[in-house]
Amino acid sequence: MSDEFPFFKQHPELTYLDSAATSQKPQAVIDALTAYYTDENANVHRGLYKLAYNTTETYEAVRAQAAHFINAPAADQIVFTRSTTDGLNLVASSFGPLAVHEGDEILVSGAEHHSNFIPWQQLAKRTGAKFVVAPVTKAGNTNPAAIERLLTPRTKILALAQVTNVAGGAVAIRPLADLVHARGGYMVVDGAQAVAHMKVDVQALGADFYAFSGHKMYGPTGIGVLYGRADLLAAMPPVQFGGEMIDEVQDAVSTWAAVPLKFEAGTPNIAGVFGLKAALDYVSHLNMANVSAHDHALVQQLRAGLAKIPGITLYGDDQSIGIVSFNLAGVHPHDLATVLDEANIAVRAGHHCAQPLMARLGVPATVRASFGVYNTPQDVEALIAAVDEGRQFFHESD
Amino acid sequence: MSDEFPFFKQHPELTYLDSAATSQKPQAVIDALTAYYTDENANVHRGLYKLAYNTTETYEAVRAQAAHFINAPAADQIVFTRSTTDGLNLVASSFGPLAVHEGDEILVSGAEHHSNFIPWQQLAKRTGAKFVVAPVTKAGNTNPAAIERLLTPRTKILALAQVTNVAGGAVAIRPLADLVHARGGYMVVDGAQAVAHMKVDVQALGADFYAFSGHKMYGPTGIGVLYGRADLLAAMPPVQFGGEMIDEVQDAVSTWAAVPLKFEAGTPNIAGVFGLKAALDYVSHLNMANVSAHDHALVQQLRAGLAKIPGITLYGDDQSIGIVSFNLAGVHPHDLATVLDEANIAVRAGHHCAQPLMARLGVPATVRASFGVYNTPQDVEALIAAVDEGRQFFHESD
Repeated sequence: MSDEFPFFKQHPELTYLDSAATSQKPQAVIDALTAYYTDENANVHRGLYKLAYNTTETYEAVRAQAAHFINAPAADQIVFTRSTTDGLNLVASSFGPLAVHEGDEILVSGAEHHSNFIPWQQLAKRTGAKFVVAPVTKAGNTNPAAIERLLTPRTKILALAQVTNVAGGAVAIRPLADLVHARGGYMVVDGAQAVAHMKVDVQALGADFYAFSGHKMYGPTGIGVLYGRADLLAAMPPVQFGGEMIDEVQDAVSTWAAVPLKFEAGTPNIAGVFGLKAALDYVSHLNMANVSAHDHALVQQLRAGLAKIPGITLYGDDQSIGIVSFNLAGVHPHDLATVLDEANIAVRAGHHCAQPLMARLGVPATVRASFGVYNTPQDVEALIAAVDEGRQFFHESD
Repeated sequence: MSDEFPFFKQHPELTYLDSAATSQKPQAVIDALTAYYTDENANVHRGLYKLAYNTTETYEAVRAQAAHFINAPAADQIVFTRSTTDGLNLVASSFGPLAVHEGDEILVSGAEHHSNFIPWQQLAKRTGAKFVVAPVTKAGNTNPAAIERLLTPRTKILALAQVTNVAGGAVAIRPLADLVHARGGYMVVDGAQAVAHMKVDVQALGADFYAFSGHKMYGPTGIGVLYGRADLLAAMPPVQFGGEMIDEVQDAVSTWAAVPLKFEAGTPNIAGVFGLKAALDYVSHLNMANVSAHDHALVQQLRAGLAKIPGITLYGDDQSIGIVSFNLAGVHPHDLATVLDEANIAVRAGHHCAQPLMARLGVPATVRASFGVYNTPQDVEALIAAVDEGRQFFHESD
């Protein structure tokens, strides 16, 4: 599989285990960017010449493809964003004040990424709503029972990652979406860690909003997707102004284009959309059952191997989706990561943009290994061996 | 010059005269994107391994290079944005409410692009400030005398394009910046149409904020630059939350990273920054005196040629920077553009995201031809001939 990813030809020495931060890109994605700039480069929704027509047509076809990818009912429920973070902030900024008022509640898990935490914390602050953070499981995952217990008739927003980014736990969104809907609230889902690892169906999930990024699913940086329920998107005001997001602009008043252009002010990341097309093609043609089996096998192998090393604490569980976070007693995660880097193993160590979870786990940081389709059992073996050597190194230097 | 731009090898038949919408890209920019994804792809400000360090180092070096490019005093006064529009909206959203209060005034030219018009119009609406739109010259350019007349002690923001996007007029920013500063206000400059055509010095201009895009200066889509005065950026709250823009996140409160990371929530368009580096290299190595002479010669040639065609109205003047807008009596600009497209000439026809200017010019739209470094006198000849043929065609069909 790694044959399709030129990065690994450039770095034959490297064991890349940081795909939850950003994935490597198949040749097809890189080729799509080159083809765009070489052959198709024109601005969209503006020009009247054939090149600009064709580019606009492809741009809009990718919107339809993205809708199909997550089973959104219609292409115009897809907004192109810069990233998952951009999409979640758009919902909090634009939809937030429509849905949330003083005395209302916003509920998140203590396992959320900052991007699905701070926007809601700040929305609560601005609106006078109560910001409620649910306890997590001992493994560091979202706890559905705790979420259920904390839902109230005042809960207007429930914001959850479909797969958490530290412990890698998949959350069964649908039952919780049903519960928040029954209380008149809305379900916002951060799909950043999900879309490359499982088939996503926003309708089956009951998501009112669903955000994901290109760069974590083998696509380019700087491009993301926000899905929204049609009636909610229609009611939402734009948060950025300019370019083709308008209907009419007069000195005193302006009116807005229809969804989704209303939310795409200025020249968009057109090349990013063309690259995203190649990434959607790539992931759509993967057999997701095989991807799951591959993820699962690597996670189990790594957890089993690490568990044999004295002093290892594992977060998550054997069902974690392509992510294993851990710590080694007496060794700061940063130091362990640096030793692993010496062995040409790229993992992430830090708070993983999840400081509220770190506080709950009682650690400043963890080491995190995360997998893409290109990772192999040999990669896992290399990591296990290097962690064990690291343990001996730090033990000897005591 | 067009040898460096593979687009023209793919489209030998095409006369591309829409660089004010988006420019074509030199091979070096495309190569930089390929090199990034093939060799350097890692997330920034997060990883502890060599690859991530190196990528972060390059990302930050581009920030310093962008600062140097516009003579900003320091790299941390450069915020990477999605586009000019994104940068101007950031200023209006974040700085706007700090500077503008009820009864204050915001002054723009009637020649502004929507992206430097609507954000201020909406800020005025939100704050209860007065939104003042200055009359333009007969040619459709910003009128400095009118701006000067409309400045008052209540003017808190003066927002102007350095080069307007329909008539292509360069505005002498410095004297107006001095006037607004003397009244305690701030100078915001839209540099989208300037940076590829002239040497920009934000300190010499007296700009408090200066925004531009990569894709109009031979760089990638989805990446832009916002310069801001250090003390103003420091005082501004972030408008997007998540990822590495934080200092500390607790359940109840969050604190922010220093400028500029405070304004770069989520994974940025890293590849876009690497591509921007190649574009900055490219433009920095151009001889700007030659670029100006080239722009000027093409503008004069086109204006002189079009002026000989009966029924042509020209906007702008012989000093327009790389842009010629015009109309043909009795023919809708869209129809003329379509006829030009049949002759494989790509121009833009429409309101150019400048409806307030169209209202002032008393037309729904214009045809706009705009130049990059790759355009030639032959391109201009082809356009003049095709417009003349178009005139005859529409005349005969009367």
